[in-house]
Amino acid sequence: MGLPRGMNSWSIGVDLGGTNLRIAAVTRHGEAIDTLHLPTRLSLGPEAVLDDMAGAIRQLIDKHPGNLLGIGVGSPGPIELPLGVLHHPPNLPGFDGLNLRLELERRLDRPVQVEHDAALAAYGEFLLGAGRAHGVDSLLMLTLGTGVGCGIVLEGRIWRGMKGAAGESGHGPIFPDGVPCPCGARGCLEMYASATAIVRLAAELGMEAPGSADHPHLSASGIAQLATAGDERALRVFDQVGQALGLSLAHLVNALDLPLYVIGGGAAAAWPLFAPRMFSTLREGSYVYRLSMPRDPNVFEPGKTHVAPAQLSDSGLLGAALLPVAARASAA
Amino acid sequence: MGLPRGMNSWSIGVDLGGTNLRIAAVTRHGEAIDTLHLPTRLSLGPEAVLDDMAGAIRQLIDKHPGNLLGIGVGSPGPIELPLGVLHHPPNLPGFDGLNLRLELERRLDRPVQVEHDAALAAYGEFLLGAGRAHGVDSLLMLTLGTGVGCGIVLEGRIWRGMKGAAGESGHGPIFPDGVPCPCGARGCLEMYASATAIVRLAAELGMEAPGSADHPHLSASGIAQLATAGDERALRVFDQVGQALGLSLAHLVNALDLPLYVIGGGAAAAWPLFAPRMFSTLREGSYVYRLSMPRDPNVFEPGKTHVAPAQLSDSGLLGAALLPVAARASAA
Repeated sequence: MGLPRGMNSWSIGVDLGGTNLRIAAVTRHGEAIDTLHLPTRLSLGPEAVLDDMAGAIRQLIDKHPGNLLGIGVGSPGPIELPLGVLHHPPNLPGFDGLNLRLELERRLDRPVQVEHDAALAAYGEFLLGAGRAHGVDSLLMLTLGTGVGCGIVLEGRIWRGMKGAAGESGHGPIFPDGVPCPCGARGCLEMYASATAIVRLAAELGMEAPGSADHPHLSASGIAQLATAGDERALRVFDQVGQALGLSLAHLVNALDLPLYVIGGGAAAAWPLFAPRMFSTLREGSYVYRLSMPRDPNVFEPGKTHVAPAQLSDSGLLGAALLPVAARASAA
Repeated sequence: MGLPRGMNSWSIGVDLGGTNLRIAAVTRHGEAIDTLHLPTRLSLGPEAVLDDMAGAIRQLIDKHPGNLLGIGVGSPGPIELPLGVLHHPPNLPGFDGLNLRLELERRLDRPVQVEHDAALAAYGEFLLGAGRAHGVDSLLMLTLGTGVGCGIVLEGRIWRGMKGAAGESGHGPIFPDGVPCPCGARGCLEMYASATAIVRLAAELGMEAPGSADHPHLSASGIAQLATAGDERALRVFDQVGQALGLSLAHLVNALDLPLYVIGGGAAAAWPLFAPRMFSTLREGSYVYRLSMPRDPNVFEPGKTHVAPAQLSDSGLLGAALLPVAARASAA
């Protein structure tokens, strides 16, 4: 089956978040041509959210002519794949047991592909961002948001694992005696490198709570601003973030030996604040990294192990849209 | 190209160890038909070891009729793959920079495939041991020997990583403030779960040194015997081994979501001593494992995450021999 050519071949990507629902029409080259943003109306229950999603998808289908290559949906986990069934997703209360794929296919009368949102973020960076820029065939991406997501692309394909639970390295227990995590473990990466963790670490160091006169916005980005301005406690927070990322990367580099590890998500904007400690901890903790690190971590050298910031702000949505494009291309 | 049929198709596997050199003639079904054991004469230098190896291989070729499918060699790391060049291998002093593959090919005038020995142990277990018994398409194996080796098979193929350094999880820094490891990191798995570590942990608990009247053989197996007999300190040693393995597995299960993790190597014989703590730590440290663990860790359930002891004593040698068989089959 030949891949249809020209700008008229397009696909739809959906990013189902706990707060926002974003739907994009994207060309098969990864250019967004239309985007819809809706609130995720969790309080109305999963049926209403599914209806909203299907409605927005239909709206794009009606509006855009041409050959629709497919629909890709990124969902928070845990989601059992390739089945598409959600299992107690903490960010989508009430969605337990829902077969996201089948419910959408029923509403749209079209096939839908569902993947873990963190895997699609990695896939988007692989196809259009840092992965393309560096010309690698495999990468792992850590997404620093409310939690820490992780997606893995091996030889051009998303690595899902047995049932879609691969890439839960946000819950790797990097400090076995560390802070208890809601997942049940102690000292998970997520407890030291997410936006949530940044705020907690700052509070633990005695930085003022939200609403105080000195620091009215004790948010991750506010703490990053303070650190950039030289606040010592804020700098210590990002030093801890860097150490946590370096330890997690040491485990991942030693296990997988990939050419590229990408750090993305909102908190990755603080890269200059956490990168020095991240790299020094990684050098110390992984002899595999030391054997193949580039002379300058910021300069790409083919055949070396790189850790780099994400290049796209919306890789999850683009990755979702390109999922059916890749499937059509590989079937061609 | 068709795969030659019948018992007359065979291959050669080589396991190059720091102490022993083992060469086996193996049918394409994995039955060893002949095995040679030689000392690895490191003191004579790499040329002599290569000559010994090539001589033994030629001996098997001359002795056995039939269609030789190929030669697979397992080497200690670090070895750059697919090139076959050793980089400061700690267990093969003097071999730095040696192109093991080319040197053997030159001596034998035949193609040779080289892989990391821990990867071949995993591959052997995949094809003929625990992997075959459980019918899985992917597995990871930790080999508890002098160090801790790690091999990964994904969808039937050895995962080498970018340059053959994948599977160095023996150097995953599970205790960031732990014992310094010769690799430069602190608290590596290898410092808590190798045979060497078992002896060190026992000494740290005040167990008598080798040669003492009470415990003339303070070896890993001797400590296991004492633990089996109820010695409290020896039991604590294996509790620490179990905790270390559980933490390492938590990282690996969360990252990869494989159906099977195999524990092999000499020290794995102490399975009953370390398994209880290994499983309790893994349950605590990995919610991915908790989501998909079998009701009884010792009873196989399809679609669940299993941790099981290795089934073969010689999976590395068999894996080496079957490497060229699989290559021929996939080219067929």
